[in-house]
Amino acid sequence: MEEQKELQPKVEKSFELIGKKWTGLIIYVLMSGPKRFSELNEAIPALSRRLLTERVKELEEHGIVLRTVIPERPIRTEYTLTQKGKELGQILGPITQWAESWIKD
Amino acid sequence: MEEQKELQPKVEKSFELIGKKWTGLIIYVLMSGPKRFSELNEAIPALSRRLLTERVKELEEHGIVLRTVIPERPIRTEYTLTQKGKELGQILGPITQWAESWIKD
Repeated sequence: MEEQKELQPKVEKSFELIGKKWTGLIIYVLMSGPKRFSELNEAIPALSRRLLTERVKELEEHGIVLRTVIPERPIRTEYTLTQKGKELGQILGPITQWAESWIKD
Repeated sequence: MEEQKELQPKVEKSFELIGKKWTGLIIYVLMSGPKRFSELNEAIPALSRRLLTERVKELEEHGIVLRTVIPERPIRTEYTLTQKGKELGQILGPITQWAESWIKD
């Protein structure tokens, strides 16, 4: 119990992070491999470019997404999940299943 | 992808619910079996009775906790996880592990 209580703020921070609108879906899309900004944008058409930019920046700041500039012509920017991000992506599965089974529209 | 997009609001609702301060810990405590209010209160001393009352009421409204009045003398009230609650408790484990590994204090 003691240990659980100390963990509680960390668990709450996690939920705060992954509970943000669209964050789960961006991670889900990146689970299939690195994506360029335009590919992320196409994969989630309901999400505006402005908000997508904001969300990937947050995920980068949290060490979940790595932004890589590929020095080709034209210059490309790729987004990849870090190890932290991949492990988060793996637990999104069971959460999504629970939500699908139990949360009413 | 289409399916994922429709699921997204449900996943966000889930996070909203379980991301609330103390909710995860209350569910965790109830995973070990039904508890009386006083037992919950003792298990999480840092949580005030007022806030505990509020949280268990929310969990009851969401169908996660079942409140049972046991007609003995003195009358006892017991809180039990529903099936929905138990399944939620099971996914709290991996989330907690991820948080423990990756979230900095």
